[in-house]
Amino acid sequence: MASRVASAALKARVHRPSMLNKLCQPEDLLHHFPNGSYIGWSGFTGVGYPKKIPVFLADHVEKNNLQGQLKYSLFVGASSGAETENRWAALDMIERRSPHQVGKDIAKGINEGRINFFDKHLSMFPVDLVYGYYTKDKPNGKLDVAVVEASEIKEDGSIVPGASVGATPELIQMADKIIIEVNTSLPSFDGLHDITMTDLPPRRKPYLITQVEDRIGTNSIPIDPEKVVGIVESDYQDQTSPNTPADEGSQQIASHLIEFFEHEVKHGRLPKNLLPLQSGIGNIANAVIGGLDNSNFRNLKVWTEVIQDTFLDLFDSGRLDFATATSVRFSPDGFKRFYKNWESYKDKLLLRSQQVSNSPEIIRRLGVIGMNTPVEVDIYAHANSTCVMGSRMLNGLGGSADFLRNAKYSIMHTPSTRPSKTDPHGVSCIVPMCTHIDQTEHDLDIVVTEAGLADVRGLAPRERARVIIDKCAHDVYKPILKAYFEKAEFECLRKGMGHEPHLLFNSFDMHKALLEEGSMRKVKPW
Amino acid sequence: MASRVASAALKARVHRPSMLNKLCQPEDLLHHFPNGSYIGWSGFTGVGYPKKIPVFLADHVEKNNLQGQLKYSLFVGASSGAETENRWAALDMIERRSPHQVGKDIAKGINEGRINFFDKHLSMFPVDLVYGYYTKDKPNGKLDVAVVEASEIKEDGSIVPGASVGATPELIQMADKIIIEVNTSLPSFDGLHDITMTDLPPRRKPYLITQVEDRIGTNSIPIDPEKVVGIVESDYQDQTSPNTPADEGSQQIASHLIEFFEHEVKHGRLPKNLLPLQSGIGNIANAVIGGLDNSNFRNLKVWTEVIQDTFLDLFDSGRLDFATATSVRFSPDGFKRFYKNWESYKDKLLLRSQQVSNSPEIIRRLGVIGMNTPVEVDIYAHANSTCVMGSRMLNGLGGSADFLRNAKYSIMHTPSTRPSKTDPHGVSCIVPMCTHIDQTEHDLDIVVTEAGLADVRGLAPRERARVIIDKCAHDVYKPILKAYFEKAEFECLRKGMGHEPHLLFNSFDMHKALLEEGSMRKVKPW
Repeated sequence: MASRVASAALKARVHRPSMLNKLCQPEDLLHHFPNGSYIGWSGFTGVGYPKKIPVFLADHVEKNNLQGQLKYSLFVGASSGAETENRWAALDMIERRSPHQVGKDIAKGINEGRINFFDKHLSMFPVDLVYGYYTKDKPNGKLDVAVVEASEIKEDGSIVPGASVGATPELIQMADKIIIEVNTSLPSFDGLHDITMTDLPPRRKPYLITQVEDRIGTNSIPIDPEKVVGIVESDYQDQTSPNTPADEGSQQIASHLIEFFEHEVKHGRLPKNLLPLQSGIGNIANAVIGGLDNSNFRNLKVWTEVIQDTFLDLFDSGRLDFATATSVRFSPDGFKRFYKNWESYKDKLLLRSQQVSNSPEIIRRLGVIGMNTPVEVDIYAHANSTCVMGSRMLNGLGGSADFLRNAKYSIMHTPSTRPSKTDPHGVSCIVPMCTHIDQTEHDLDIVVTEAGLADVRGLAPRERARVIIDKCAHDVYKPILKAYFEKAEFECLRKGMGHEPHLLFNSFDMHKALLEEGSMRKVKPW
Repeated sequence: MASRVASAALKARVHRPSMLNKLCQPEDLLHHFPNGSYIGWSGFTGVGYPKKIPVFLADHVEKNNLQGQLKYSLFVGASSGAETENRWAALDMIERRSPHQVGKDIAKGINEGRINFFDKHLSMFPVDLVYGYYTKDKPNGKLDVAVVEASEIKEDGSIVPGASVGATPELIQMADKIIIEVNTSLPSFDGLHDITMTDLPPRRKPYLITQVEDRIGTNSIPIDPEKVVGIVESDYQDQTSPNTPADEGSQQIASHLIEFFEHEVKHGRLPKNLLPLQSGIGNIANAVIGGLDNSNFRNLKVWTEVIQDTFLDLFDSGRLDFATATSVRFSPDGFKRFYKNWESYKDKLLLRSQQVSNSPEIIRRLGVIGMNTPVEVDIYAHANSTCVMGSRMLNGLGGSADFLRNAKYSIMHTPSTRPSKTDPHGVSCIVPMCTHIDQTEHDLDIVVTEAGLADVRGLAPRERARVIIDKCAHDVYKPILKAYFEKAEFECLRKGMGHEPHLLFNSFDMHKALLEEGSMRKVKPW
């Protein structure tokens, strides 16, 4: 392998001399990527992913017209950068992918049957990986190679990740060979991580975290230096996109939620500073965090999967005491702000592996308030987080079920409708029966739309249906859903099968109307 | 309140004299049960439930024609005895019930809309109770009265439960008043329990259990003696039913599973003595445990919800080292055997609260092998555990999702078909789409029927469908399911929505055929 000369920037980040001897350019490492390889990348929610090697391999395939001839099984904690995995998908380089993805071309590949994708609870993916479940058909039971981004290599060879931890510890544990991309365009993130590796049962230990800020691990990820086949200098930052501003509907959802939290505090079911917050990605999530910034709540804490720009506002206004997640995914402007004010944020932030950030054990213990956005929710409080019309994969399950199953408050927030091509309210997000179910009726406490908030705690299914339709459905769909429910209730009670009444063979009629007539409101009367 | 004279048997069980002063007969306590009361009972899987008070109240309603005039909200860890809750249901005494039930009349009441029933993860029910979620509409936020069975009262007033712990600690925590039924027809179970109470976040602690036999609590449930309004002597044992012998299909399922375990040991994914076993209730579960008794596995351990007769065989043959659960539910003969050989079993058994026995934290840490029986499983590995035809409640979710979400091996075992009225194979347990979903595709690793075992770990949905149909479906249904899947795949891939292909508006056609033609095999070709 050709040795290359290290830049001053790189030398400042690599404190183990023997690692510098492994410095190379991506093309030197091509032979580690034969067709059919099982590959792991660092990365989570589009940050902390490797950049040089994936882009080089994509260029290599493109230049040499190798589309479909170099295909890989690709395992990343969650999504990586569009210029890497999405381009790989476009170049037909992905045979199998798990457990999450973001990108037009990769979604296309999945939904056209070219990519074997399976989504998995993000807390569980790294464990199942270490169990050998995903490599059981390989003779050595290993990933062939893990490509991981580091912002520093320590003297002991261990690596300091960048903006995400994700499944990197476990990918490294399971890898036969390791390639490290040292990103010198980022500051070193040293001190921002709390790293734990995965033991196998029967020798697994409790996660001794009882507060959001507790540390239980090391600052860096241990590496077997003999497994490192190359290090590469990486020279550009995570390619994130700007945030969309909160719209009016999202702000109404936020205000319903804040009113609800105040109600819970008043009745003694929540402390004055609430409990650790988990918030998903997107417009509504941003509005909720923004809403908290205009509320009377103080000394807030966050236990979540990904930290976004709005949390910086919450830090700056002094309302947020501490936040922990498995990634910081800021907008380009957010990252600038974060790096500029590093000193003021660094002691209030901690990044952990996704197995820990999404751990049922810790989420339940801490009594997290979990908030996520679904594709659709049904009248009995099941939710679809993944598959449109039951079949078309969006991004994957993510951590939604890790949080919603285990949170003290399990909250689904969604606009009551979305536009179809021909009708601004063509799609009701409240439906008779979800076409795919990721969160069950046993998992949700609260459903909230801009129309209102349904508190379904302790309610039987028929009671739930009434309150969800009444509080959450859009006015256009209230009579439609009510008619479904009342007919279903009548028919099922009459037959002595009315616990959770359905017109089973007409439960997807609204979806049919959407498909055939362009709007759910054109459903035929039940 | 009339004081009564304590029997010698009772005196031998009640070591706190002030408690004996509260001795009474059930009729003395009638005034604690006004219409509309919120009541908690001890009990789990039909053992350890209170007997005298419930039966007295049922007699009172029957004698005085008070049906529908004394109605209660009834909270019990899981099911209690048929002569109590089922009789209450028959007498229209149950307004609301959670989180599980067993009995013809109670299921009838639920499915005819007279009982507001909601099922909940058994690990979560006691927590939500202590959060005040189920009593939030009551001014004091409490249960009015808890009626609990004890096999002994200690000097400090704490109680030693009988054959189950269930949700008793939390029901006691939440109760305004407590009535204790001291059952003198059972031996004292002192030493057989490991009791923990429920703290509220942000002050909740880890469960420091790293091995099946670890103790983290006390031997008895602490009680505030000022809350005790009466103690009653109870004089008959838990009314359980005999076990049904394993049939041929169940034995085939067991043999597939044992072969699979051997395969996993061989490939280093399981230790030689396996990992802690969880096994549900029923014919198949019995066959699996029976199968292990004829296997080469030794030094087995059990972490489960309920311990049944077959575990006694496993103890007796020396294969089982330790078992822990939240109840011992033996047959009448099993209980005789258990009490007779108490000394040989007592150090190998531990009963914990259902919050601990079903704790995601511990199940995941220990790497439990979870095995349950569903109503139906679909080709993508979703499972229905609760509602027949999407609507008719059987018994409730139970702990199935606590275990299957968190187990290292998440296994669903079912016969491939069940008989309908007119066709011995009229109902396929493998269906295109489950009519109700309690376990998602993200939760299951293995589906097994008498026909074979499908290992779906790491498979994309379309791969899963192929292997489930091929390995698990009955020969009668293989071509039918294959035709559904292939048409769905063709249609959905063509439309670019083929991640999890469905013929959405025909996905319940097999259920329709069952309803209209008496057999799923009479489904019209897709």
